[in-house]
Amino acid sequence: MSEYTSLDSLGEFGLIRRLQEHVELQNPSTVLGIGDDAAIIEPGQKQMVVTTDMLIENVHFDLTFCPLKHLGYKAVAVNVSDIAAMNAIPTQIVVSLAISARYTVEAMEELYEGMRLACENYKVDLVGGDTTSSRSGLVISVTALGEVEKGKAVLRSTAQVNDLICVTGDLGGAYLGLQLLEREKQAFLADPETQPELEGKDYVVGRQLRPEARMDVIHELKELGVHPTSMIDISDGLGSELLHICSQSRVGAAVFQDKLPVDQQTLDTAEEFKIDPVTCIMNGGEDYELLFTAKLSDYDKLKNHPDITIIGKITDAAEGVNLVTPSGNAHAIKAQGWNHFA
Amino acid sequence: MSEYTSLDSLGEFGLIRRLQEHVELQNPSTVLGIGDDAAIIEPGQKQMVVTTDMLIENVHFDLTFCPLKHLGYKAVAVNVSDIAAMNAIPTQIVVSLAISARYTVEAMEELYEGMRLACENYKVDLVGGDTTSSRSGLVISVTALGEVEKGKAVLRSTAQVNDLICVTGDLGGAYLGLQLLEREKQAFLADPETQPELEGKDYVVGRQLRPEARMDVIHELKELGVHPTSMIDISDGLGSELLHICSQSRVGAAVFQDKLPVDQQTLDTAEEFKIDPVTCIMNGGEDYELLFTAKLSDYDKLKNHPDITIIGKITDAAEGVNLVTPSGNAHAIKAQGWNHFA
Repeated sequence: MSEYTSLDSLGEFGLIRRLQEHVELQNPSTVLGIGDDAAIIEPGQKQMVVTTDMLIENVHFDLTFCPLKHLGYKAVAVNVSDIAAMNAIPTQIVVSLAISARYTVEAMEELYEGMRLACENYKVDLVGGDTTSSRSGLVISVTALGEVEKGKAVLRSTAQVNDLICVTGDLGGAYLGLQLLEREKQAFLADPETQPELEGKDYVVGRQLRPEARMDVIHELKELGVHPTSMIDISDGLGSELLHICSQSRVGAAVFQDKLPVDQQTLDTAEEFKIDPVTCIMNGGEDYELLFTAKLSDYDKLKNHPDITIIGKITDAAEGVNLVTPSGNAHAIKAQGWNHFA
Repeated sequence: MSEYTSLDSLGEFGLIRRLQEHVELQNPSTVLGIGDDAAIIEPGQKQMVVTTDMLIENVHFDLTFCPLKHLGYKAVAVNVSDIAAMNAIPTQIVVSLAISARYTVEAMEELYEGMRLACENYKVDLVGGDTTSSRSGLVISVTALGEVEKGKAVLRSTAQVNDLICVTGDLGGAYLGLQLLEREKQAFLADPETQPELEGKDYVVGRQLRPEARMDVIHELKELGVHPTSMIDISDGLGSELLHICSQSRVGAAVFQDKLPVDQQTLDTAEEFKIDPVTCIMNGGEDYELLFTAKLSDYDKLKNHPDITIIGKITDAAEGVNLVTPSGNAHAIKAQGWNHFA
């Protein structure tokens, strides 16, 4: 045990000093980072966006199969994904951690290393936070700030009839990655000698453990000259997010089942688990892709983009929000949003 | 039980809708509040400050004696206190809640009502958040944003030798309020028929349960034309905060014990508990008053202010950070900051 450092040997201020050692600031808008009562930010002529997401042990993550470094990365990425969904550029985060005594200083450094990597990738400055103890599991609360030119933020409430409905990347993988990891955990608990059967499953497992925010697409859309008419990130599943856009924009939608982007490994894994891949796509969640709408006149700019798939169109509210099967049947999409309290 | 609403009957989105019903926006810088991936803020020519604080059940609060409405108020006030300590004006907050299934919707509305009251008092807009479930207790994470004119933020690192050391209000009360509440809790657990003995203790109990951020003093200092040379809010006790200012400013300090502001009820309660009131003031914490330094030339503006007490002066770093007793003995002030992990 001597190679690990207990949290109480450092204390709160010692831990904060240790964790902030590797924090480097990258944004000109960051005037003052960690170390005072608050950080100082100067966005210039731009608007700022702010979002927050909390991750709770055994609700949002299971440390028996989620490495702390990946968890740190994910905690930042899911917040950056919300900033991306506003068409903004992430600039700063603050991080609050509640830590139970069973963690070591080295474990928290692993977590911070993952956050640091994400900050580097997304060019975000970690500018402050709070570190406290928890009686039970680990709690990670991240608040992210971003900048956007005035008038360029993209809301959920501004989709128009006849707009194209688009998604980035492919969907359903993160959910099946979780099913795989849960299966291997059960197998391990039943027989600790068992070897995990995750060969050839890197993609879906990676989708679950280390999702990326689609900042790349935000930059590409700007280069293409496409300004989305509405946008949301896919954290709860395509169905739930589409319903948010449609209800807030007071429109309907038709999404074509045979257009839904899905990876072959996702399809194979769905078959293995005897789950309909459409269910994984519509209700699985945690893919952190972007769902957006765009003007019909942007069709040519979007149709061959390797990271974007046009999956349907916005309709009158009266037509409802429907999934259209290859045979032409329309099924109403229902809110399957995760009820955390059920 | 029929008058209470279970969380799972509303679900996450239902709970969010219910809680946000009473949220009203007050700041012109708030362009978009709750309801999208992120809120939008437009601070104009000003700098923004950002801070975050997390409150954990049974670490920072005990619901057997802390009413949820007070808790909600306090969760906002402690963040506003950090904004005040930067000499900034609070403008927006985002709130993340992790809630265990044993809470009802009505309980969360109580909590939100307290937050709403604090938002009203401090003129802060609640612009977003995250609501999730917890396996154990309640977790409240608040991030606050504020505005400050460029160059007017007051840091911890800018105190100068010969500056006056000042505190607002009086100190030690919140700690003794906690001792009283803990004593009554133990008495209640031993004999549930017992009546709480809190008569005549309103002040110290109130200091613990419903602290106020000293925004009033921030506005008054501006009117007086006093610009603090350094500032911090007192969350961990005067001693710990003074050490932060002195180490970050590379200076020493002499604080005079007989100048420390303390309320009579605090003194009486300290005597009842046989605790040295100086210990409560120096190490008690949670008073959420402001500790600041000011130029010697501001002495006349500060000396008779009813909410401000001059308690000492900044010295050379070589002289150390000392508490000077009435008999003239200097005792080095030690870091007694709360070690959450011990």
